[in-house]
Amino acid sequence: MKVIKFGGSSLANGTQLKKVLQIVKDDADRRIVVVSAPGKRNDSDEKVTDLLIKLADEVKNKEDHQKTLKTILKRYQDIVDELEIDPSVMDIISKNYEKLIQTKFYNELYALDAYKASGEDNSAILVAAFFNKEGIPAKYVNPKDAGLLVTDNPGNARVLPESFKNLYALRDSKEIIVFPGFFGYTKDGQLLTFSRGGSDISGAIVANGVKASLYENFTDVDAIYVANPKMVKHPKKIKQLTYREMRELSYSGFSVFHDEALQPAFSAGIPVVVKNTNNPSAPGTSITRTKPENKQIVSGIASSTGFMSIYIGKYLMNREVGFGRRVLQIFEDFNLNFEHMPSGIDDLSIILRANQMTMQQEQELLYRLKNELEADDVQVKGGICLLMIVGEGMVNSVGTVAKACTALAEADINLEMINQGSSEVSIMFGIDEKDEARAVKVLYDAFFPAKKD
Amino acid sequence: MKVIKFGGSSLANGTQLKKVLQIVKDDADRRIVVVSAPGKRNDSDEKVTDLLIKLADEVKNKEDHQKTLKTILKRYQDIVDELEIDPSVMDIISKNYEKLIQTKFYNELYALDAYKASGEDNSAILVAAFFNKEGIPAKYVNPKDAGLLVTDNPGNARVLPESFKNLYALRDSKEIIVFPGFFGYTKDGQLLTFSRGGSDISGAIVANGVKASLYENFTDVDAIYVANPKMVKHPKKIKQLTYREMRELSYSGFSVFHDEALQPAFSAGIPVVVKNTNNPSAPGTSITRTKPENKQIVSGIASSTGFMSIYIGKYLMNREVGFGRRVLQIFEDFNLNFEHMPSGIDDLSIILRANQMTMQQEQELLYRLKNELEADDVQVKGGICLLMIVGEGMVNSVGTVAKACTALAEADINLEMINQGSSEVSIMFGIDEKDEARAVKVLYDAFFPAKKD
Repeated sequence: MKVIKFGGSSLANGTQLKKVLQIVKDDADRRIVVVSAPGKRNDSDEKVTDLLIKLADEVKNKEDHQKTLKTILKRYQDIVDELEIDPSVMDIISKNYEKLIQTKFYNELYALDAYKASGEDNSAILVAAFFNKEGIPAKYVNPKDAGLLVTDNPGNARVLPESFKNLYALRDSKEIIVFPGFFGYTKDGQLLTFSRGGSDISGAIVANGVKASLYENFTDVDAIYVANPKMVKHPKKIKQLTYREMRELSYSGFSVFHDEALQPAFSAGIPVVVKNTNNPSAPGTSITRTKPENKQIVSGIASSTGFMSIYIGKYLMNREVGFGRRVLQIFEDFNLNFEHMPSGIDDLSIILRANQMTMQQEQELLYRLKNELEADDVQVKGGICLLMIVGEGMVNSVGTVAKACTALAEADINLEMINQGSSEVSIMFGIDEKDEARAVKVLYDAFFPAKKD
Repeated sequence: MKVIKFGGSSLANGTQLKKVLQIVKDDADRRIVVVSAPGKRNDSDEKVTDLLIKLADEVKNKEDHQKTLKTILKRYQDIVDELEIDPSVMDIISKNYEKLIQTKFYNELYALDAYKASGEDNSAILVAAFFNKEGIPAKYVNPKDAGLLVTDNPGNARVLPESFKNLYALRDSKEIIVFPGFFGYTKDGQLLTFSRGGSDISGAIVANGVKASLYENFTDVDAIYVANPKMVKHPKKIKQLTYREMRELSYSGFSVFHDEALQPAFSAGIPVVVKNTNNPSAPGTSITRTKPENKQIVSGIASSTGFMSIYIGKYLMNREVGFGRRVLQIFEDFNLNFEHMPSGIDDLSIILRANQMTMQQEQELLYRLKNELEADDVQVKGGICLLMIVGEGMVNSVGTVAKACTALAEADINLEMINQGSSEVSIMFGIDEKDEARAVKVLYDAFFPAKKD
């Protein structure tokens, strides 16, 4: 049994939905279809999810919401018209929205989650109706009925472990199941959404629950690339990645997945494949627990901007037991996550995402660091990009760092930081943001040289 | 006014003391002489300080101490005989030891410090007598009388800031002052020693106190070398170092100085020169706050063994605000200093000196890390060597890391860790201890290539 997930672009219009149908038909093992909300039909189009956030806002502020609601409904109506689905499905969807707008919510965050989730929910209802009309017996299943339980964190819910056992029952369905992505329910019955990449998460949770043989994630690219196509022209495709490689890559700026999205599938050892709805015969990228040994040491290159470093210098720092702990205590008081902490004898630096602090908080943080730690020197540097090379083979290859550093040095790119030593599958470099694209390019050329014919 | 310090090998016998006399005579500015205890006369000889530790032990355990005491006294007697110094000086030294052995100490650590310090103290008395006999007016000054005050940490005392003002009065002496290194007194009048490199510390404190124009540190090498001569044959000599470079180098295994020894001179901006008692005309190595710009980016290479790493892996670690702080809190509970903390997304490693823990403590530490942090994985790896390249020019040179990594990679030396990003003057690599000498050698060859004639 395979779980198959389609992203927003695969559900944007009737033409795309026909491709989805064909893909499901092509393999009898594709028994559970997890769907996103309709995505953009073209570059100037709006995502249904974005329209829903606007709608939630208008309703909350008691503004006129009729125009926005109409636009949303028209997106579903267009698909119904294009595919000649039984028009009664639009009655269901319209009533769902009527009911949603009348609901009084305990708090605004719950409301926002309910509005956002309705995009996926009604998309699933529509897809099930389309499949049935085309002679493929299918049924919409609501996550509440399926027992997809989550923690009480609006916009950032986490799956509860008992969900997996509940979801196992989906195996028994004789019809193809169409399951809306992006949300679950608390034990109290409150609808909450996952974080970014929410439909990917739902698919991975369902795949885990039903013990799928494969989790197929259909999107609009042929494969995951070894480097960002915005920075490298026609980068090579990745045929196979390990879970660990995928996690490190997606953490550091690979846009295909949010770094935690696939975890429920990974933890159950279920292989994942990333494929293209618009070119389903392409092999895609498969992601597995292990992979055969390979001459290619580096699997991918990723980068991410928006980091800052805070430097703290104090003579004899390394003799003060507890100094590092006190530094981190202050960061914790500001509820700040840090990424890295390189240290010298008399100094240490904290690398963190800059968007965690306002200017005011930054000033307060610096004041406390300087005064409570009696530091000689505290300095802030913004505009840092973290650059990562990832590959399972790296731990055994002494030359990888040398190769990377040489490539960066030849391009005159200064290293603010190197972090190597904890993860076996990645090495991280800190560079100036302005050098990002150039750095990715030279690393790509170093590790993925064009074949000489 | 110059403060001049002589190490143990410069005071090991009469022949060496004659060299000391000549050096002091050669420059009228050399007004304060800080001395160590007599060192080894040959490879099989014992240092007086080691004999004193033995003596302290015997007295403490009420064992027969006569043989050890005799050996110690004979070391001084031999010098008195060789140099034909007034024999009455031996009466003073003998009585000092009689008195020391009869003293009842408040605790054993105070006793040990008093025994150790007597080596330097009696050495100073002897040197002053020798200078006077040779027609150089000199006087022994006791650190208590000079007001060298320290914190109450036996074996690891720290200078109190008021000492510097007290010591300024030494400038007024018409005679050359001979000052014993290695110890000071608490405000309660208790004698306590500094840590390793104690006489170097005393010299630097005195140089600071009297606002010396130069602190000359005489030892038995012509200069500080760019790499350890035990690992590299005839390494190049360093002409000039900055304070920062010296601190980083001595921290990481340069045996000439303990890493904090020169700090009192540095903090007052007093230049330091390291010279050879056996070859005083050699220019030595001068250590100053700044140095002229130089094509030579790397100033020195150092290494130090005896480190271990503790790896902690936990899925979603980077989402847990406070995780790093809680790790360091546990290390602090064990009173452990850590050196570095490289981190990945789901893991971090702590690099620390292995000799801080017994096996029992290590087991307890690992148990707490695993259980309190709910870590997925905790692993220990011993036998780590930290390798450091140091140089003021490094921060502006993009190719230094590349060059170092390439040299190590070509020698097939695996990198356990790289730490770059906090200190502007050093880069640190973690390697396996077994590769230490080879690593130093290849880095030396890379950064200090033999001139082609």
